[in-house]
Amino acid sequence: MKRKISNAVIRRLPRYYRHVDDLHYNGEVRISSSALGNSMGLTASQIRQDLSCFGEFGQQGYGYDVEKLRAALANILGMNSGYKAIILGVGNLGSALIQNFYFSHNGFELVAAFDVNPSMVGTRVAGTPIYHMDDLESEVDRLKPDVGILTTPRSVVSKAANRLVAAGVAGLWNFTNVELKLIHPEKVIVENVHFADSLLALSFMLTTRENRT
Amino acid sequence: MKRKISNAVIRRLPRYYRHVDDLHYNGEVRISSSALGNSMGLTASQIRQDLSCFGEFGQQGYGYDVEKLRAALANILGMNSGYKAIILGVGNLGSALIQNFYFSHNGFELVAAFDVNPSMVGTRVAGTPIYHMDDLESEVDRLKPDVGILTTPRSVVSKAANRLVAAGVAGLWNFTNVELKLIHPEKVIVENVHFADSLLALSFMLTTRENRT
Repeated sequence: MKRKISNAVIRRLPRYYRHVDDLHYNGEVRISSSALGNSMGLTASQIRQDLSCFGEFGQQGYGYDVEKLRAALANILGMNSGYKAIILGVGNLGSALIQNFYFSHNGFELVAAFDVNPSMVGTRVAGTPIYHMDDLESEVDRLKPDVGILTTPRSVVSKAANRLVAAGVAGLWNFTNVELKLIHPEKVIVENVHFADSLLALSFMLTTRENRT
Repeated sequence: MKRKISNAVIRRLPRYYRHVDDLHYNGEVRISSSALGNSMGLTASQIRQDLSCFGEFGQQGYGYDVEKLRAALANILGMNSGYKAIILGVGNLGSALIQNFYFSHNGFELVAAFDVNPSMVGTRVAGTPIYHMDDLESEVDRLKPDVGILTTPRSVVSKAANRLVAAGVAGLWNFTNVELKLIHPEKVIVENVHFADSLLALSFMLTTRENRT
Protein backbone atom coordinates (compact mmCIF):
# COMPACT_ATOMS: atom_id res chain seq x y z
CA MET A 1 0.00 0.00 0.00
CA LYS A 2 1.57 3.29 -1.08
CA ARG A 3 -0.13 5.62 1.39
CA LYS A 4 -2.66 5.63 4.16
CA ILE A 5 -6.17 5.05 2.84
CA SER A 6 -8.82 7.17 4.54
CA ASN A 7 -11.68 5.56 6.35
CA ALA A 8 -14.11 7.10 3.85
CA VAL A 9 -12.33 5.34 0.98
CA ILE A 10 -12.30 2.06 2.92
CA ARG A 11 -16.10 2.39 3.28
CA ARG A 12 -16.56 3.11 -0.43
CA LEU A 13 -14.40 0.23 -1.68
CA PRO A 14 -16.92 -2.55 -0.86
CA ARG A 15 -19.65 -0.47 -2.49
CA TYR A 16 -17.53 -0.12 -5.64
CA TYR A 17 -17.07 -3.85 -5.67
CA ARG A 18 -20.79 -4.46 -5.16
CA HIS A 19 -21.78 -2.13 -8.00
CA VAL A 20 -19.12 -3.41 -10.39
CA ASP A 21 -20.00 -6.99 -9.50
CA ASP A 22 -23.64 -6.23 -10.40
CA LEU A 23 -22.55 -4.77 -13.73
CA HIS A 24 -20.43 -7.84 -14.38
CA TYR A 25 -23.32 -10.12 -13.47
CA ASN A 26 -25.52 -8.21 -15.92
CA GLY A 27 -23.04 -8.73 -18.72
CA GLU A 28 -21.72 -5.15 -18.95
CA VAL A 29 -18.17 -4.98 -20.32
CA ARG A 30 -17.25 -1.37 -19.64
CA ILE A 31 -18.43 1.63 -17.67
CA SER A 32 -17.45 5.29 -17.50
CA SER A 33 -16.56 6.84 -14.17
CA SER A 34 -19.55 9.19 -14.56
CA ALA A 35 -22.00 6.30 -15.11
CA LEU A 36 -20.55 4.41 -12.15
CA GLY A 37 -20.77 7.62 -10.14
CA ASN A 38 -24.41 8.13 -11.09
CA SER A 39 -25.40 4.69 -9.89
CA MET A 40 -23.54 5.24 -6.61
CA GLY A 41 -24.36 8.86 -5.88
CA LEU A 42 -20.75 9.97 -6.30
CA THR A 43 -19.03 12.28 -8.77
CA ALA A 44 -16.84 10.95 -11.57
CA SER A 45 -13.82 12.77 -10.18
CA GLN A 46 -14.40 11.27 -6.75
CA ILE A 47 -14.36 7.80 -8.26
CA ARG A 48 -11.24 8.47 -10.31
CA GLN A 49 -9.53 9.84 -7.24
CA ASP A 50 -10.54 6.90 -5.02
CA LEU A 51 -9.42 4.28 -7.50
CA SER A 52 -6.18 6.10 -8.28
CA CYS A 53 -5.09 5.22 -4.71
CA PHE A 54 -4.59 1.68 -5.97
CA GLY A 55 -3.14 2.13 -9.45
CA GLU A 56 -4.39 2.90 -12.92
CA PHE A 57 -7.57 1.07 -13.91
CA GLY A 58 -9.42 3.40 -16.24
CA GLN A 59 -8.51 4.63 -19.67
CA GLN A 60 -9.20 8.15 -20.93
CA GLY A 61 -12.21 8.10 -23.25
CA TYR A 62 -12.96 4.43 -22.61
CA GLY A 63 -13.77 4.20 -18.95
CA TYR A 64 -13.27 1.05 -16.96
CA ASP A 65 -13.14 -2.53 -18.17
CA VAL A 66 -15.75 -4.09 -15.86
CA GLU A 67 -14.14 -7.50 -15.56
CA LYS A 68 -10.68 -6.10 -14.88
CA LEU A 69 -11.97 -3.53 -12.40
CA ARG A 70 -13.97 -6.19 -10.59
CA ALA A 71 -10.92 -8.45 -10.35
CA ALA A 72 -8.73 -5.56 -9.18
CA LEU A 73 -11.24 -4.51 -6.51
CA ALA A 74 -11.60 -8.11 -5.31
CA ASN A 75 -7.84 -8.28 -4.96
CA ILE A 76 -7.59 -4.92 -3.18
CA LEU A 77 -10.32 -6.01 -0.77
CA GLY A 78 -8.44 -9.18 0.12
CA MET A 79 -11.10 -11.45 -1.34
CA ASN A 80 -8.43 -13.77 -2.74
CA SER A 81 -6.59 -14.09 0.57
CA GLY A 82 -8.36 -17.28 1.62
CA TYR A 83 -9.53 -15.78 4.90
CA LYS A 84 -11.21 -18.14 7.33
CA ALA A 85 -13.86 -17.12 9.85
CA ILE A 86 -15.41 -18.62 12.95
CA ILE A 87 -18.59 -17.49 14.63
CA LEU A 88 -19.11 -17.19 18.38
CA GLY A 89 -22.72 -17.49 19.51
CA VAL A 90 -25.26 -19.58 17.60
CA GLY A 91 -28.36 -17.74 18.71
CA ASN A 92 -30.83 -16.13 16.33
CA LEU A 93 -28.35 -13.76 14.71
CA GLY A 94 -25.53 -16.30 14.58
CA SER A 95 -27.85 -18.86 12.99
CA ALA A 96 -29.09 -16.29 10.48
CA LEU A 97 -25.53 -15.51 9.39
CA ILE A 98 -24.54 -19.19 9.19
CA GLN A 99 -27.60 -20.07 7.15
CA ASN A 100 -28.04 -17.01 4.95
CA PHE A 101 -24.85 -15.01 4.59
CA TYR A 102 -22.82 -15.83 1.47
CA PHE A 103 -19.39 -16.07 3.05
CA SER A 104 -17.80 -17.61 -0.03
CA HIS A 105 -19.09 -14.78 -2.28
CA ASN A 106 -16.96 -12.49 -0.17
CA GLY A 107 -13.87 -14.65 -0.24
CA PHE A 108 -14.38 -16.07 3.23
CA GLU A 109 -14.74 -19.62 4.45
CA LEU A 110 -16.80 -20.16 7.60
CA VAL A 111 -14.98 -23.03 9.28
CA ALA A 112 -16.62 -23.40 12.69
CA ALA A 113 -19.15 -22.04 15.16
CA PHE A 114 -19.02 -22.00 18.96
CA ASP A 115 -21.70 -21.99 21.63
CA VAL A 116 -22.22 -23.17 25.19
CA ASN A 117 -25.62 -24.79 24.62
CA PRO A 118 -25.10 -28.56 25.11
CA SER A 119 -27.94 -29.41 22.73
CA MET A 120 -26.08 -27.60 19.91
CA VAL A 121 -22.49 -28.62 20.56
CA GLY A 122 -21.46 -31.51 18.30
CA THR A 123 -24.16 -30.76 15.72
CA ARG A 124 -23.92 -28.81 12.47
CA VAL A 125 -25.88 -25.79 11.22
CA ALA A 126 -25.98 -25.60 7.42
CA GLY A 127 -22.84 -27.74 7.34
CA THR A 128 -20.88 -25.70 9.88
CA PRO A 129 -19.74 -27.72 12.92
CA ILE A 130 -20.58 -26.32 16.35
CA TYR A 131 -17.98 -26.68 19.10
CA HIS A 132 -18.13 -25.84 22.78
CA MET A 133 -16.66 -22.51 23.88
CA ASP A 134 -14.38 -24.53 26.19
CA ASP A 135 -12.64 -25.79 23.06
CA LEU A 136 -12.18 -22.33 21.53
CA GLU A 137 -8.41 -22.10 21.99
CA SER A 138 -7.67 -25.62 20.78
CA GLU A 139 -9.91 -25.22 17.71
CA VAL A 140 -8.43 -21.80 16.88
CA ASP A 141 -5.01 -23.37 17.12
CA ARG A 142 -6.10 -26.12 14.74
CA LEU A 143 -8.19 -24.08 12.28
CA LYS A 144 -6.20 -20.82 12.28
CA PRO A 145 -9.14 -18.51 11.53
CA ASP A 146 -8.43 -14.91 10.52
CA VAL A 147 -11.73 -13.45 11.72
CA GLY A 148 -13.96 -14.06 14.71
CA ILE A 149 -17.61 -13.12 14.26
CA LEU A 150 -19.18 -11.98 17.52
CA THR A 151 -22.86 -12.80 17.93
CA THR A 152 -22.75 -13.78 21.61
CA PRO A 153 -24.87 -12.23 24.36
CA ARG A 154 -23.58 -8.74 25.16
CA SER A 155 -22.54 -9.69 28.70
CA VAL A 156 -19.88 -12.17 27.56
CA VAL A 157 -18.63 -10.63 24.32
CA SER A 158 -15.58 -8.76 25.62
CA LYS A 159 -14.27 -11.85 27.39
CA ALA A 160 -14.81 -13.94 24.26
CA ALA A 161 -13.10 -11.28 22.13
CA ASN A 162 -10.05 -11.22 24.39
CA ARG A 163 -9.76 -15.00 24.20
CA LEU A 164 -9.77 -14.78 20.40
CA VAL A 165 -7.10 -12.07 20.37
CA ALA A 166 -4.94 -14.05 22.80
CA ALA A 167 -5.30 -17.08 20.52
CA GLY A 168 -4.03 -15.02 17.56
CA VAL A 169 -7.20 -14.05 15.68
CA ALA A 170 -6.42 -10.85 13.74
CA GLY A 171 -9.92 -9.53 12.98
CA LEU A 172 -13.20 -9.25 14.87
CA TRP A 173 -16.58 -8.68 13.19
CA ASN A 174 -18.71 -7.46 16.08
CA PHE A 175 -22.52 -7.58 15.84
CA THR A 176 -23.26 -7.08 19.52
CA ASN A 177 -23.30 -3.25 19.50
CA VAL A 178 -21.02 -3.39 22.54
CA GLU A 179 -17.83 -1.34 22.57
CA LEU A 180 -15.39 -4.20 23.16
CA LYS A 181 -13.11 -3.87 26.18
CA LEU A 182 -9.90 -5.29 24.74
CA ILE A 183 -6.76 -6.02 26.73
CA HIS A 184 -4.62 -5.72 23.57
CA PRO A 185 -6.51 -3.53 21.09
CA GLU A 186 -3.31 -3.04 19.08
CA LYS A 187 -3.29 -6.72 18.16
CA VAL A 188 -6.62 -6.84 16.36
CA ILE A 189 -8.78 -5.01 13.83
CA VAL A 190 -12.38 -4.57 14.94
CA GLU A 191 -15.23 -3.96 12.53
CA ASN A 192 -18.46 -3.07 14.31
CA VAL A 193 -21.82 -3.57 12.61
CA HIS A 194 -24.16 -0.78 13.65
CA PHE A 195 -27.72 -1.59 12.60
CA ALA A 196 -28.81 1.66 14.25
CA ASP A 197 -26.74 3.78 11.82
CA SER A 198 -28.70 2.29 8.97
CA LEU A 199 -32.11 2.76 10.63
CA LEU A 200 -31.27 6.36 11.54
CA ALA A 201 -30.23 7.12 7.96
CA LEU A 202 -33.65 5.83 6.88
CA SER A 203 -35.30 7.87 9.62
CA PHE A 204 -33.47 10.98 8.37
CA MET A 205 -34.54 10.37 4.77
CA LEU A 206 -38.16 9.86 5.84
CA THR A 207 -38.08 13.08 7.82
CA THR A 208 -36.47 15.03 4.98
CA ARG A 209 -39.00 13.76 2.50
CA GLU A 210 -41.84 14.75 4.79
CA ASN A 211 -40.38 18.22 5.19
CA ARG A 212 -40.20 18.56 1.44
CA THR A 213 -43.70 17.49 0.53
CA MET B 1 -34.25 21.43 4.77
CA LYS B 2 -32.36 24.23 3.05
CA ARG B 3 -30.50 22.26 0.42
CA LYS B 4 -29.97 18.73 -0.77
CA ILE B 5 -27.91 16.74 1.70
CA SER B 6 -25.37 14.42 0.09
CA ASN B 7 -25.50 10.72 0.70
CA ALA B 8 -22.10 10.91 2.39
CA VAL B 9 -23.47 13.39 4.94
CA ILE B 10 -26.56 11.22 5.49
CA ARG B 11 -24.22 8.31 6.30
CA ARG B 12 -22.16 10.40 8.71
CA LEU B 13 -25.12 11.85 10.64
CA PRO B 14 -25.97 8.64 12.55
CA ARG B 15 -22.29 8.25 13.39
CA TYR B 16 -22.21 11.80 14.77
CA TYR B 17 -25.23 10.98 16.88
CA ARG B 18 -23.67 7.75 18.12
CA HIS B 19 -20.42 9.43 19.12
CA VAL B 20 -22.10 12.44 20.74
CA ASP B 21 -24.53 10.13 22.54
CA ASP B 22 -21.53 8.21 23.94
CA LEU B 23 -19.97 11.48 25.12
CA HIS B 24 -23.25 12.47 26.73
CA TYR B 25 -23.56 9.06 28.39
CA ASN B 26 -20.04 9.50 29.77
CA GLY B 27 -20.92 12.85 31.28
CA GLU B 28 -18.97 15.08 28.86
CA VAL B 29 -20.45 18.58 28.57
CA ARG B 30 -18.56 19.97 25.60
CA ILE B 31 -16.31 18.86 22.77
CA SER B 32 -14.24 20.62 20.12
CA SER B 33 -14.75 19.77 16.48
CA SER B 34 -11.15 18.53 16.36
CA ALA B 35 -11.66 16.15 19.31
CA LEU B 36 -14.90 14.87 17.80
CA GLY B 37 -13.10 14.51 14.48
CA ASN B 38 -10.26 12.56 16.08
CA SER B 39 -12.63 10.03 17.61
CA MET B 40 -14.43 9.61 14.28
CA GLY B 41 -11.50 9.69 11.85
CA LEU B 42 -12.66 12.98 10.28
CA THR B 43 -11.12 16.42 10.13
CA ALA B 44 -12.45 19.29 12.22
CA SER B 45 -13.33 21.27 9.11
CA GLN B 46 -15.28 18.32 7.70
CA ILE B 47 -17.35 18.16 10.87
CA ARG B 48 -17.98 21.92 10.92
CA GLN B 49 -19.00 21.77 7.28
CA ASP B 50 -21.34 18.79 7.77
CA LEU B 51 -23.09 20.27 10.77
CA SER B 52 -23.38 23.71 9.15
CA CYS B 53 -25.87 22.11 6.73
CA PHE B 54 -28.35 22.12 9.60
CA GLY B 55 -27.69 25.41 11.36
CA GLU B 56 -25.19 26.79 13.84
CA PHE B 57 -24.36 24.47 16.72
CA GLY B 58 -20.76 25.21 17.66
CA GLN B 59 -19.21 28.32 19.09
CA GLN B 60 -15.79 29.64 18.12
CA GLY B 61 -13.29 28.79 20.86
CA TYR B 62 -15.78 26.70 22.84
CA GLY B 63 -16.72 23.85 20.58
CA TYR B 64 -20.02 22.06 20.87
CA ASP B 65 -22.31 21.77 23.86
CA VAL B 66 -22.71 17.98 23.99
CA GLU B 67 -26.27 17.92 25.27
CA LYS B 68 -27.49 20.49 22.77
CA LEU B 69 -25.68 18.87 19.87
CA ARG B 70 -27.09 15.49 20.82
CA ALA B 71 -30.62 16.90 20.97
CA ALA B 72 -30.17 18.71 17.66
CA LEU B 73 -28.83 15.58 15.93
CA ALA B 74 -31.69 13.49 17.32
CA ASN B 75 -34.12 15.99 15.92
CA ILE B 76 -32.39 16.16 12.53
CA LEU B 77 -32.42 12.36 12.35
CA GLY B 78 -36.16 12.26 12.98
CA MET B 79 -35.78 10.44 16.29
CA ASN B 80 -38.57 12.52 17.80
CA SER B 81 -41.01 11.81 14.98
CA GLY B 82 -42.69 8.88 16.72
CA TYR B 83 -42.00 6.51 13.83
CA LYS B 84 -43.57 3.09 14.04
CA ALA B 85 -42.14 -0.06 12.47
CA ILE B 86 -43.38 -3.51 11.64
CA ILE B 87 -41.24 -6.52 10.80
CA LEU B 88 -41.98 -9.05 8.07
CA GLY B 89 -40.48 -12.48 8.64
CA VAL B 90 -39.89 -13.87 12.13
CA GLY B 91 -37.09 -16.26 11.24
CA ASN B 92 -33.66 -16.14 12.84
CA LEU B 93 -32.81 -12.61 11.76
CA GLY B 94 -36.29 -11.23 12.44
CA SER B 95 -36.28 -12.80 15.91
CA ALA B 96 -32.81 -11.42 16.59
CA LEU B 97 -33.96 -7.89 15.75
CA ILE B 98 -37.17 -8.19 17.77
CA GLN B 99 -35.34 -9.50 20.81
CA ASN B 100 -32.09 -7.55 20.73
CA PHE B 101 -32.36 -4.35 18.71
CA TYR B 102 -33.10 -1.25 20.78
CA PHE B 103 -35.82 0.27 18.63
CA SER B 104 -36.84 2.80 21.27
CA HIS B 105 -33.24 4.06 21.65
CA ASN B 106 -33.51 5.10 18.03
CA GLY B 107 -36.88 6.75 18.34
CA PHE B 108 -38.81 3.85 16.83
CA GLU B 109 -41.63 1.74 18.19
CA LEU B 110 -41.88 -1.83 16.93
CA VAL B 111 -45.63 -2.40 16.81
CA ALA B 112 -46.10 -5.76 15.09
CA ALA B 113 -44.46 -8.67 13.34
CA PHE B 114 -45.78 -10.84 10.49
CA ASP B 115 -45.11 -14.39 9.45
CA VAL B 116 -46.86 -17.29 7.73
CA ASN B 117 -45.86 -19.94 10.26
CA PRO B 118 -49.13 -21.03 11.99
CA SER B 119 -47.29 -21.97 15.18
CA MET B 120 -46.09 -18.37 15.52
CA VAL B 121 -49.16 -16.42 14.46
CA GLY B 122 -51.12 -15.21 17.48
CA THR B 123 -48.13 -15.43 19.83
CA ARG B 124 -45.74 -12.71 20.94
CA VAL B 125 -41.96 -12.45 20.70
CA ALA B 126 -40.46 -10.20 23.37
CA GLY B 127 -43.84 -8.50 23.67
CA THR B 128 -44.36 -7.93 19.95
CA PRO B 129 -47.53 -9.55 18.56
CA ILE B 130 -47.15 -11.77 15.50
CA TYR B 131 -49.87 -11.60 12.85
CA HIS B 132 -50.40 -13.66 9.72
CA MET B 133 -49.19 -12.19 6.43
CA ASP B 134 -52.79 -12.52 5.21
CA ASP B 135 -53.69 -9.75 7.66
CA LEU B 136 -50.90 -7.42 6.53
CA GLU B 137 -53.10 -4.83 4.81
CA SER B 138 -55.72 -4.66 7.56
CA GLU B 139 -53.07 -4.36 10.29
CA VAL B 140 -51.13 -1.72 8.35
CA ASP B 141 -54.38 0.18 7.96
CA ARG B 142 -54.96 -0.05 11.71
CA LEU B 143 -51.39 0.51 12.98
CA LYS B 144 -50.17 2.98 10.35
CA PRO B 145 -46.49 1.99 10.50
CA ASP B 146 -43.90 4.24 8.84
CA VAL B 147 -41.31 1.55 8.19
CA GLY B 148 -41.46 -2.07 7.13
CA ILE B 149 -38.48 -4.20 8.12
CA LEU B 150 -37.82 -6.95 5.60
CA THR B 151 -36.40 -10.18 7.01
CA THR B 152 -38.43 -12.59 4.90
CA PRO B 153 -37.00 -15.32 2.69
CA ARG B 154 -35.43 -13.76 -0.42
CA SER B 155 -37.93 -15.39 -2.77
CA VAL B 156 -40.93 -13.53 -1.36
CA VAL B 157 -39.44 -10.20 -0.35
CA SER B 158 -40.29 -8.13 -3.44
CA LYS B 159 -43.93 -9.19 -3.30
CA ALA B 160 -44.10 -8.36 0.40
CA ALA B 161 -42.42 -5.00 -0.21
CA ASN B 162 -44.93 -4.08 -2.93
CA ARG B 163 -47.82 -4.94 -0.60
CA LEU B 164 -46.37 -2.60 2.03
CA VAL B 165 -45.93 0.23 -0.47
CA ALA B 166 -49.48 -0.25 -1.77
CA ALA B 167 -50.71 -0.09 1.83
CA GLY B 168 -48.95 3.25 2.32
CA VAL B 169 -45.74 2.34 4.17
CA ALA B 170 -43.18 5.06 3.39
CA GLY B 171 -39.89 3.36 4.33
CA LEU B 172 -38.41 -0.11 3.89
CA TRP B 173 -35.45 -1.41 5.87
CA ASN B 174 -34.28 -4.32 3.78
CA PHE B 175 -32.05 -7.03 5.30
CA THR B 176 -32.49 -9.62 2.57
CA ASN B 177 -29.65 -8.44 0.32
CA VAL B 178 -32.11 -8.63 -2.59
CA GLU B 179 -32.48 -5.64 -4.92
CA LEU B 180 -36.21 -5.09 -4.44
CA LYS B 181 -38.33 -5.13 -7.59
CA LEU B 182 -40.76 -2.34 -6.78
CA ILE B 183 -43.81 -1.43 -8.84
CA HIS B 184 -43.79 2.13 -7.43
CA PRO B 185 -40.23 2.90 -6.31
CA GLU B 186 -41.07 6.62 -6.21
CA LYS B 187 -43.47 6.02 -3.33
CA VAL B 188 -40.99 4.60 -0.85
CA ILE B 189 -37.52 5.10 0.60
CA VAL B 190 -35.47 1.92 0.75
CA GLU B 191 -32.53 1.44 3.08
CA ASN B 192 -30.59 -1.73 2.35
CA VAL B 193 -28.41 -3.34 5.00
CA HIS B 194 -25.35 -4.82 3.37
CA PHE B 195 -23.49 -7.05 5.80
CA ALA B 196 -21.01 -7.83 3.04
CA ASP B 197 -19.83 -4.20 2.83
CA SER B 198 -18.82 -4.39 6.46
CA LEU B 199 -17.04 -7.75 6.12
CA LEU B 200 -15.17 -6.56 3.02
CA ALA B 201 -14.02 -3.41 4.83
CA LEU B 202 -12.61 -5.68 7.53
CA SER B 203 -11.06 -7.90 4.87
CA PHE B 204 -9.41 -4.84 3.31
CA MET B 205 -8.04 -3.65 6.65
CA LEU B 206 -6.64 -7.12 7.40
CA THR B 207 -4.97 -7.23 4.00
CA THR B 208 -3.52 -3.73 4.36
CA ARG B 209 -2.14 -4.50 7.78
CA GLU B 210 -0.51 -7.67 6.48
CA ASN B 211 1.05 -5.76 3.60
CA ARG B 212 2.50 -3.23 6.04
CA THR B 213 4.11 -5.63 8.47
